[in-house]
Amino acid sequence: MSKGRKHISIPVDMTTPVPVWCVGTYDEQDRPNVMTASWAGIVCSRPPCVAVALRDATHSCRGLQARKAFTVSVPSETQYVQADYFGMAGGKTKDKFAASRTTAVRSDKVDAPYVAEFPLILECELKESVVLGLHTLYVGEIMGVKAHPDILNGDTVDASKLAPFFFSPSERAYYRIGERLSPAFAPGRALMDR
Amino acid sequence: MSKGRKHISIPVDMTTPVPVWCVGTYDEQDRPNVMTASWAGIVCSRPPCVAVALRDATHSCRGLQARKAFTVSVPSETQYVQADYFGMAGGKTKDKFAASRTTAVRSDKVDAPYVAEFPLILECELKESVVLGLHTLYVGEIMGVKAHPDILNGDTVDASKLAPFFFSPSERAYYRIGERLSPAFAPGRALMDR
Repeated sequence: MSKGRKHISIPVDMTTPVPVWCVGTYDEQDRPNVMTASWAGIVCSRPPCVAVALRDATHSCRGLQARKAFTVSVPSETQYVQADYFGMAGGKTKDKFAASRTTAVRSDKVDAPYVAEFPLILECELKESVVLGLHTLYVGEIMGVKAHPDILNGDTVDASKLAPFFFSPSERAYYRIGERLSPAFAPGRALMDR
Repeated sequence: MSKGRKHISIPVDMTTPVPVWCVGTYDEQDRPNVMTASWAGIVCSRPPCVAVALRDATHSCRGLQARKAFTVSVPSETQYVQADYFGMAGGKTKDKFAASRTTAVRSDKVDAPYVAEFPLILECELKESVVLGLHTLYVGEIMGVKAHPDILNGDTVDASKLAPFFFSPSERAYYRIGERLSPAFAPGRALMDR
């Protein structure tokens, strides 16, 4: 552990890498839409819930509110061009699936589409929404999980096979996931008896 | 992009890597406490907000509710033993700072302590709380950001110098951050005119 380093204050900004998740919704005309969200995470174990934060101005937001459902399609690092595109194009005027040559599949668990080519899918029912400011936070209960068989060890997703990537907001850049560092709930045991 | 792969349903679980954040609070006796949370993320740009989800049973939870403030100290990969410990030990009976030989510093922005040795600190005022189930979601507005100078390029945090790590819940393992993959809001432009 480094010693003698002092913190300095820097401008308030989003500074630490966060997930790249692609949120799938149907709009009021039953058209599938998808947008990339990085203001997102897992937020509850029981019931299993995720949160995604979307700007009110987005087309996805209206679809999500109307259908009370969404999916999260997690892209692999080889799919960063599509994921980046999903975060830039507007779903009101564009068919983002067609433009990216990806396939919208209707979930059999919730009223929302997912990206067939992306390896991991979380199928969510809207549970709560909280207006925060520019973004509204949507909490979804995970009703189903789907995975490409080649990212699994048994029933468990292998993060190195999933190969997700992360968004560093202040740098406006994506980073790969790296090597396995350690098991969790194990190395800290060395400090438990102090 | 892979073709012809079909998803299969797997048990509902937390399947994709998420951040490792250490949440600092004072308790009712003004003792500093810290616990690791991975059910967490950035959730709003304006005002800048983070969310962390904590179990009601935790000592941190009571401190956070009483002081209406918390910090997020982001550990670097060299600090995984301390971060792992902060997620296992209970703050009610243990002085986790002493046991881990880390230093609690009082924030000058909010009524909460942070981990001096960890390179990046977000100082947050409690803005909203939402009971979800086993976890309650706490949204904090970021009132200040502090960084060790050696993780900065100018005022920007360099993710490869920060070297955060991620938690893969279904594998119960930590993963390093990898290499820079691409700029954001750029590669997807190639699809914009389709």
